[in-house]
Amino acid sequence: MNNYLDNSNKQIKLAMMFVTGYGGESYSWRFSESDPKAYTNIQTYIKLAQTAEKGKIHMLFIADTPGITGSGVNGDMGRNSPMFVMEPMTIFSAVASHTSKIGLVATYSTTYNLPYNLARQLKTLDHISNGRIGWNAVTTGTRAVAYNFGNEPLPDTSTRYEMADEMVESVQSLWGSFGKDAYIADKQSGEFINMEEVIPVNYQGNYYQTQGPLAIPPTPQGQPPIFQAGPSYEGIELAGKFASGVYANPFTIDDAKHYRMMLKESAIKHGRKPDEINMFSGFMATVADTYEEALERRYELLDYMSENEYNEQILYLSAMISIKLSEMNINEPLPQFLQDQARPNPRDPRSNRAVELIKKGLNPREVLANGIINYHPVVVGTPDDVADFMETWFKAGATDGFSIVPESQKGIEDFVEKVVPVLQERGIYHDDYEGDTLRDHLGVPEQYGIRK
Amino acid sequence: MNNYLDNSNKQIKLAMMFVTGYGGESYSWRFSESDPKAYTNIQTYIKLAQTAEKGKIHMLFIADTPGITGSGVNGDMGRNSPMFVMEPMTIFSAVASHTSKIGLVATYSTTYNLPYNLARQLKTLDHISNGRIGWNAVTTGTRAVAYNFGNEPLPDTSTRYEMADEMVESVQSLWGSFGKDAYIADKQSGEFINMEEVIPVNYQGNYYQTQGPLAIPPTPQGQPPIFQAGPSYEGIELAGKFASGVYANPFTIDDAKHYRMMLKESAIKHGRKPDEINMFSGFMATVADTYEEALERRYELLDYMSENEYNEQILYLSAMISIKLSEMNINEPLPQFLQDQARPNPRDPRSNRAVELIKKGLNPREVLANGIINYHPVVVGTPDDVADFMETWFKAGATDGFSIVPESQKGIEDFVEKVVPVLQERGIYHDDYEGDTLRDHLGVPEQYGIRK
Repeated sequence: MNNYLDNSNKQIKLAMMFVTGYGGESYSWRFSESDPKAYTNIQTYIKLAQTAEKGKIHMLFIADTPGITGSGVNGDMGRNSPMFVMEPMTIFSAVASHTSKIGLVATYSTTYNLPYNLARQLKTLDHISNGRIGWNAVTTGTRAVAYNFGNEPLPDTSTRYEMADEMVESVQSLWGSFGKDAYIADKQSGEFINMEEVIPVNYQGNYYQTQGPLAIPPTPQGQPPIFQAGPSYEGIELAGKFASGVYANPFTIDDAKHYRMMLKESAIKHGRKPDEINMFSGFMATVADTYEEALERRYELLDYMSENEYNEQILYLSAMISIKLSEMNINEPLPQFLQDQARPNPRDPRSNRAVELIKKGLNPREVLANGIINYHPVVVGTPDDVADFMETWFKAGATDGFSIVPESQKGIEDFVEKVVPVLQERGIYHDDYEGDTLRDHLGVPEQYGIRK
Repeated sequence: MNNYLDNSNKQIKLAMMFVTGYGGESYSWRFSESDPKAYTNIQTYIKLAQTAEKGKIHMLFIADTPGITGSGVNGDMGRNSPMFVMEPMTIFSAVASHTSKIGLVATYSTTYNLPYNLARQLKTLDHISNGRIGWNAVTTGTRAVAYNFGNEPLPDTSTRYEMADEMVESVQSLWGSFGKDAYIADKQSGEFINMEEVIPVNYQGNYYQTQGPLAIPPTPQGQPPIFQAGPSYEGIELAGKFASGVYANPFTIDDAKHYRMMLKESAIKHGRKPDEINMFSGFMATVADTYEEALERRYELLDYMSENEYNEQILYLSAMISIKLSEMNINEPLPQFLQDQARPNPRDPRSNRAVELIKKGLNPREVLANGIINYHPVVVGTPDDVADFMETWFKAGATDGFSIVPESQKGIEDFVEKVVPVLQERGIYHDDYEGDTLRDHLGVPEQYGIRK
């Protein structure tokens, strides 16, 4: 194994997706224990964050796009919980003041923001949290979203990535415009700020210009680290240049290793060390004391689907395994001759797993309940099953850590109470936070101002 | 008295300026009891907010401009505390989750924001606070600030006010795009949101366009009320059209009445009731059990000035009273013949008060200590002195309420503990909050969506 990928002396880093206060499954709001109005209830977010902090989860993560971009397979919120929180920054600010260790990573568009306002809000939030903020800097790629911000259509991909580069640079310039040691506040001498070290940046990009300075002192971690989440060539370039963490959604260990290698090489190409960039692979966990109990929760989610939606899932699964299924025969294992005919659809990387489960004799409904059509790998099972999945990926060098998508509100508690102790016992997860700031948790170096 | 101005059956409404965690006097950070790093310490903000809430203050208020625009008479932060907080929204979000009743009014530029992002953040914050947010919508009038947002110079005044009109309309449109009763979240029926009532706005202004909808349900007050703070003709128009509250800085009762009348008439002209617009007149209080004790604090502030700055103050006072003063003679009352010669400078409305104090026999240093050059009226004295000032203005119909600028961090506590009980005893201030939302506190009607 290439030594950048060697994890033998390392431990798993964890991000918990904050999703929208419900869970990654868009029907989980209907579970009996769920707060059905979690979307607008800050107390629920605070409680979830405190639970995650008990489990020493390195960071909470909020994905975002500034617009309605559909939720669930139906693409609307008629029956599904929303895909994004009301607004990331304001939610994290409240959460920050009720937690003390957990990192807080918010997604903000590099396409539809003003650098000065964004830099100001993120750095303030970094003070409010005592140095626990990260910025997931992503380009906005949804056409409809453009029209929330004027009448111009969405810029093309390469323009968007040029803008992203400038946005990160201009924000970092503003962060660095307040001298590291300029915040004096000495009552005796009367010196408040050493204004000679608060210097305009005069950032002049093609898309963004800002003069500054930004009158906010360094935070306990200097400034927030950058995250990135786009797997395109341009995304990997951006990550290599700026990111301390990358959110990824590979479906297999091989794909994950390949992607991780590209990220580490991109970091090296940009003059950084491979360990300065951490890959977090997304997966969803439904965990309970027994597989049957976990499966029961997954069946309940299937029951919440409309008939139409359920039929679409059956059709989709048919295509994944190359066997026509119908409502008639999905509750029992396929006959052996059909199991033997099952072939993965080469256009969908999730098909291998679907075929594997069918050949193991699971009936098609159970295969669906295992979340086979999810946009992440899904692990349904006992704490050991979940820990096995994580350990296998981690020891294979596939990832630096995971971004866990809890299936529901209760999923965070279940993970913390059931899975975390197993990971700790196996020695592959920390017993406590490494320090007080997000940079401490990530093990990434300090940085102040623009990355040169 | 014109009946719009009649306050005989009313009580005073109060806004407490949150300033920058220190106080309105830019040297107050040096007081022995001050937290000198309050600027970056969220715990101090939370504590101040909780203190104000104990005093049933209707709302906290944060003034803001997105840039460094100078602080104190020297225009920098070398020795003076900053003029603005790190960032209003993120600070209020943390504060909201540690308070339960007090209103929170944040200033956001109508010139340098994106309507979709602003609407989203403010409405989320309104949920986090359970309906206690107000937006002070102000145009940005500082030339240097423009260059924090690109290379275009500051738009001229009339353009800025056209932009302000569009910004408020577009934000309100987005707020109204989520139907009043569309947030169902009924576990039994499975209906989450009635998407037929979540409707794009397609707002098409000359300066701002946004499609929406914004997927955030109504808050406990529907949506945040608007505040305004510009005394120009255009500002009064904007206020009459949109504002539930206006921050004003008159120096005399006559000026205040005149301004208040214009505001009420502007509201009527725009089809609203005069009571729907509340004027808050700014003043600074330094309150202690005796006048001497209060004065002592003010002298301490003068001592923190540089010699240069102090000399400038003496020169300025000279011009106000038309008598040349020097460091030689400022510590004793002027001789009678000089007192008799004192004449107010007609170009500075604060001069009348300066001359009045000189003629009362106060020495020039004491006149300065009374805050005569402040950009607000300053009351230095006992709780009864402060209450007298407020009662006189209020009973004369000069204002609907006050925005109190505490001289220092301790100023909030002093006001709450010493002045509030006196006002309550006199029956001119409420004993408890009228309700749970900012609109309840202000007594302004519900509104949802754009004002038509």
